[in-house]
Amino acid sequence: MRFEIITLFPEITQWFEVGLLGKAAEKGLLSFVTHSPREHATDKHRTVDDAPYGGGSGMVLKAPPVVASLRHLDALRGGPSRKIMLTPQGAPFRQETARRLANEPALTFLCGRYEGFDERIRSHMDEELSLGDFVLFGGEVAAFAMIEAVARLLPGVLGNSESPVEESHSTGLLEYPHYTRPAEFEGEGIPPILLSGNHAKIAAWRREQAILRTRARRPELLDNADLSEQEREWLRNHPEEEE
Amino acid sequence: MRFEIITLFPEITQWFEVGLLGKAAEKGLLSFVTHSPREHATDKHRTVDDAPYGGGSGMVLKAPPVVASLRHLDALRGGPSRKIMLTPQGAPFRQETARRLANEPALTFLCGRYEGFDERIRSHMDEELSLGDFVLFGGEVAAFAMIEAVARLLPGVLGNSESPVEESHSTGLLEYPHYTRPAEFEGEGIPPILLSGNHAKIAAWRREQAILRTRARRPELLDNADLSEQEREWLRNHPEEEE
Repeated sequence: MRFEIITLFPEITQWFEVGLLGKAAEKGLLSFVTHSPREHATDKHRTVDDAPYGGGSGMVLKAPPVVASLRHLDALRGGPSRKIMLTPQGAPFRQETARRLANEPALTFLCGRYEGFDERIRSHMDEELSLGDFVLFGGEVAAFAMIEAVARLLPGVLGNSESPVEESHSTGLLEYPHYTRPAEFEGEGIPPILLSGNHAKIAAWRREQAILRTRARRPELLDNADLSEQEREWLRNHPEEEE
Repeated sequence: MRFEIITLFPEITQWFEVGLLGKAAEKGLLSFVTHSPREHATDKHRTVDDAPYGGGSGMVLKAPPVVASLRHLDALRGGPSRKIMLTPQGAPFRQETARRLANEPALTFLCGRYEGFDERIRSHMDEELSLGDFVLFGGEVAAFAMIEAVARLLPGVLGNSESPVEESHSTGLLEYPHYTRPAEFEGEGIPPILLSGNHAKIAAWRREQAILRTRARRPELLDNADLSEQEREWLRNHPEEEE
C-alpha cells in the first residue's frame, strides 16, 4: 500500500520510521510519500493561502497549488489512488472505514491548515473524512491515525502473535481486562480464574467481562455487537453496578 | 501547559517542533516531555511487557515500570497533572473534552502498545480516553491529536487572525464553504454574493450554508446546535436536496 500525504510540512516523516509502521516499510509492505503544495506555488513567496472572498478571519488554502499537487502525485504513481480530504466536515472515520480503505492500492491524504480549503478543491477528491468531533491545527495527525488504522489491517504488518481479531472495536465489544506478571503488585492481585488453567472458563469469563465493560462504558455499542440471545438474556439479569 | 507523554518511543518529538505547536513552545506557552517506561525496567533486556495471565495472544504492558514512570514524572514536575490513559476502551474524545483539559496545569498521556495495559495500572490514572472507534498501533497519535486540540485553545497559541470561534465543532455546526482567489479556477467561479460587499447578507448566506451542510452531512449534530426557532422553521421548509 502506498500512502501519500499532501501537507505544508513534508519534512514530517519521523512517525513513519518507528515501530511496526517502520518495520512494515522496511519489509516493502507499505511506502510513504509526502508532498507540499508550495512546490506548485507560482510567486516568489510560494504562497498557498489567501484571504477568503466575502471577508472574515483566517486564510484559505488556494485551489491551484493543491490541485497541481494531486496531479503531480498521479503522474508519479501511474496507477489509481483514493483521494481523501481531511476536514472536520467529513464523515467520521471508523474501524469500518479503515477496513474499506485497506483494499485500495494507494491512498492520498490532503491535509488542511489555516481556515480551510477553497471549496473548488472538493470536486477533485473522492471523499472527505474527519478524525472526530474536535478541532486540530491541521490534517496531518488525522492522516497519521488513519494510516495506522489501515496499515495494521494489511497482510504481514502485524506479527502472528498480534492478531487484530479480539481487540476493542473489532468484535463490536470493548476488550476484557488484561493482567501480566507480577501476580501481586503493591498489594493488588489478579482474578484467581486466570490461574485456573481452565481455558474454557477463562474464555467465558473474558467474554462476560468484555460485555459488562461495554455496557458500563459504551452501552450504545451493544446494539450492534454480535451477542447471542442467551448472552442478552444473561445481561438483562445482571446488575448494572458491576463492570 | 506542560504535556507529558509516556511512550516506548520517547524519541518521537518531531511533531512538537513544527507549525503553531512549535511556535507556541518557542514562546514558552507550552512544553513537552517524553518518557519511556523502559527506564524503569529492571532486567537487562529492559522488558516492559509480558504474556497475559490466562493465556491468549499478544503481550501486556506491565504495571511496575508504568507506575514508576508516573511517579518519576510527578517528582520531576512538582505540581499536579491530570493523568490520561489512552485506550480504545476510554470515553470518546470530543471538543468539549479538549475545553475541559485546557484548564489543567499539566497533562500526562500514557500510550499503550501491544495488546493492552495490566489492569492494575488503571487505578493510578485520572481518566481513560479514546480517540475514536478505530484501532491504532498505540496511543501516540491519539496523544498528538489531543495535545493539538487542547493546545489551540490556550491563550496566545492561535494568532488573532485565526479565531477558533467559527470553526466546525465549535459552534455545533459544520463550517460554511470558503473561497479564495482566483475568482475563476478551471471554469469554476465563486458564489456572486461573496463579491457583493454586503456583509450582513454574506453573514446570513454563510450561516444558511453551515446549517444546510450540517443537515446534509451530520444531521445528528443539529439536535445540539444553537439554532433559533426561526432558523429551525426555515430549515423545515427548505428542500433536503440542497447543501
